[in-house]
Amino acid sequence: MRFHTRKWVKPEDLNPNGTLFGGQLLAWIDEEAALYTIIQLENSKIVTKYMSEINFMASAKKGDIVEIGIEVVKFGRSSITLKCEARNKMTRETILTVDNMIMVNLDENGKPKPHGKSKIEFVKDRLEDS
Amino acid sequence: MRFHTRKWVKPEDLNPNGTLFGGQLLAWIDEEAALYTIIQLENSKIVTKYMSEINFMASAKKGDIVEIGIEVVKFGRSSITLKCEARNKMTRETILTVDNMIMVNLDENGKPKPHGKSKIEFVKDRLEDS
Amino acid sequence: MRFHTRKWVKPEDLNPNGTLFGGQLLAWIDEEAALYTIIQLENSKIVTKYMSEINFMASAKKGDIVEIGIEVVKFGRSSITLKCEARNKMTRETILTVDNMIMVNLDENGKPKPHGKSKIEFVKDRLEDS
Amino acid sequence: MRFHTRKWVKPEDLNPNGTLFGGQLLAWIDEEAALYTIIQLENSKIVTKYMSEINFMASAKKGDIVEIGIEVVKFGRSSITLKCEARNKMTRETILTVDNMIMVNLDENGKPKPHGKSKIEFVKDRLEDS
Amino acid sequence: MRFHTRKWVKPEDLNPNGTLFGGQLLAWIDEEAALYTIIQLENSKIVTKYMSEINFMASAKKGDIVEIGIEVVKFGRSSITLKCEARNKMTRETILTVDNMIMVNLDENGKPKPHGKSKIEFVKDRLEDS
Amino acid sequence: MRFHTRKWVKPEDLNPNGTLFGGQLLAWIDEEAALYTIIQLENSKIVTKYMSEINFMASAKKGDIVEIGIEVVKFGRSSITLKCEARNKMTRETILTVDNMIMVNLDENGKPKPHGKSKIEFVKDRLEDS
Repeated sequence: MRFHTRKWVKPEDLNPNGTLFGGQLLAWIDEEAALYTIIQLENSKIVTKYMSEINFMASAKKGDIVEIGIEVVKFGRSSITLKCEARNKMTRETILTVDNMIMVNLDENGKPKPHGKSKIEFVKDRLEDS
Repeated sequence: MRFHTRKWVKPEDLNPNGTLFGGQLLAWIDEEAALYTIIQLENSKIVTKYMSEINFMASAKKGDIVEIGIEVVKFGRSSITLKCEARNKMTRETILTVDNMIMVNLDENGKPKPHGKSKIEFVKDRLEDS
Repeated sequence: MRFHTRKWVKPEDLNPNGTLFGGQLLAWIDEEAALYTIIQLENSKIVTKYMSEINFMASAKKGDIVEIGIEVVKFGRSSITLKCEARNKMTRETILTVDNMIMVNLDENGKPKPHGKSKIEFVKDRLEDS
Repeated sequence: MRFHTRKWVKPEDLNPNGTLFGGQLLAWIDEEAALYTIIQLENSKIVTKYMSEINFMASAKKGDIVEIGIEVVKFGRSSITLKCEARNKMTRETILTVDNMIMVNLDENGKPKPHGKSKIEFVKDRLEDS
Repeated sequence: MRFHTRKWVKPEDLNPNGTLFGGQLLAWIDEEAALYTIIQLENSKIVTKYMSEINFMASAKKGDIVEIGIEVVKFGRSSITLKCEARNKMTRETILTVDNMIMVNLDENGKPKPHGKSKIEFVKDRLEDS
Repeated sequence: MRFHTRKWVKPEDLNPNGTLFGGQLLAWIDEEAALYTIIQLENSKIVTKYMSEINFMASAKKGDIVEIGIEVVKFGRSSITLKCEARNKMTRETILTVDNMIMVNLDENGKPKPHGKSKIEFVKDRLEDS
């Protein structure tokens, strides 16, 4: 799994008990899955369709650095299934995992559309090819 | 299921495709589950421990009114399991469902603590009793 | 008065003195009045025209749950007048009251338009009727 | 009346109808009244106690510049009464007025405390005096 | 230099160390420069092109009032160069200075366009002239 | 230069002209520099002291994915100097560069403190060593 995006836990990200608000963490993960999908499918019109069960394994506190990792589980015909993990950057402790996030590729009218991808691609290679 | 909190989908809640950002919706649901738990357990120190699979069944657009419903599935010893639904207020179309959200009751040190509750209570009754 | 929407007072809602920022509370109330009006008038193009005097009777602190109640005072020809109260969910202490909020129904060009409503309706009944 | 703070109406400040969200404007005004009070009373522990009726006279749209003016109506013993106006910077059209905002000076325990001020002071003069 | 906009440092503006988040301060300054440019050039389509070096000379803490000053350094043909300072309103201590911010006037297609201005103007005078 | 954090340009990140708000981009960069510094210096008490000139070379629009790269220019005694770039993830077009950001390591009292580091370290290696 590759970890890219990092978040610095700031006061605005906390719940009233002073730990990272779970809803904020879910929003971070959903954004990361969305942009990862856009990069892979080369289509910005995508949507989160399904998330498998979510385990909140640890918390994070103000000042912690959270990094978010994504890996592809499966390329479907008009979808892509991702696995996601959020962990503490400094200790590598896992904060949350989601085994399956199904992201769907849409056409202009918001209907599922085949994406024609079957393996991970890197932007670098695409640009070199062109 | 009782629906209380309502949200007006504003420009700041949208993803770049112009529909309700899924991460925002998840944050709304997590907040609603948290405060519902606080009300039932009469303890503000609670935490989201687990969410079962999430189906995004429909989207919402700018100006829509989303209402969020919660119902208790089970009272555990130091936890409470909730069922959650978000739907469009005007059409009653279901936007998202989560069948099981496990919320845990914590003591001062952040350890699970029995809550002593076994059925839904209403604040009104508590205040009248006292 | 019916209380629906609930807010969990989070760190981002506080003023520098550590209590609920009054401006945030006013924003919550304005949103609730707007969406209540949209539900009643079945028109999403509405605007807040007037608020009568506002008494800040109590404050709220981090972790408190605030619930917001609305009731109709009067149905005008192209407007609706609402009464609003914010109170602490757990103690029922009143935080703020506004006796009259005049919300105006607009047409496509932003001009006042008769709404043809004269009593409170419930979405449930509308859907059953259709 | 002196106008100081200016706000640029950004997408995040809009309601779903695409005009400035009234609740955001109320939050801006409450913040300006609070900081003006802090400057005048030389005490950061202050609170908004009362706002007289509010007329929303015009709206603002994305890209507009809103400026907020404050003037002192009266110095009370432990309070100060302000008049507030928000207007469009480029056209000077009035957007909203509040004739009386009562701000209360508090002591360490949150109780009203005499502030000993009876006229407007400028920070410049205070610094020169010292 | 004229100081207009004032900001009240609220919990949401802090970094995890409890002082004003530098990124928030930069955002405030960029907004102030943008709206000052719009006022002077009477064109809302403008963009920040360049900022000279930035010295963070002091910090600010929760509850501080920060005021932001702008002055024109130079009128170019299709640009305007501004000097900017943020300081503590109560103590006048300088928090940050930027000697040159180049703001560019754009046409409908986003290309630089001559603005025809060569000196500071006040909205008041413009309105009286018309 | 290594690019880690990615941002999805959402409606709330736009200026009124519909492109990425420069102030938001500066805030993203400042956060990334801060957390990179914390990781390298293994101290969460750090502060941005200086940024060299900033060139806004291109803009970004709603739906774009922006990635932020950081590299170390120099390890000082109690500081670290970073180079920063923001670019469009899909096209690799540079959006903004900052050649020197000086981040200072602080002790408990907020005074500069030697950090004892002289080269880049990876968290992975630190954890394996211990």
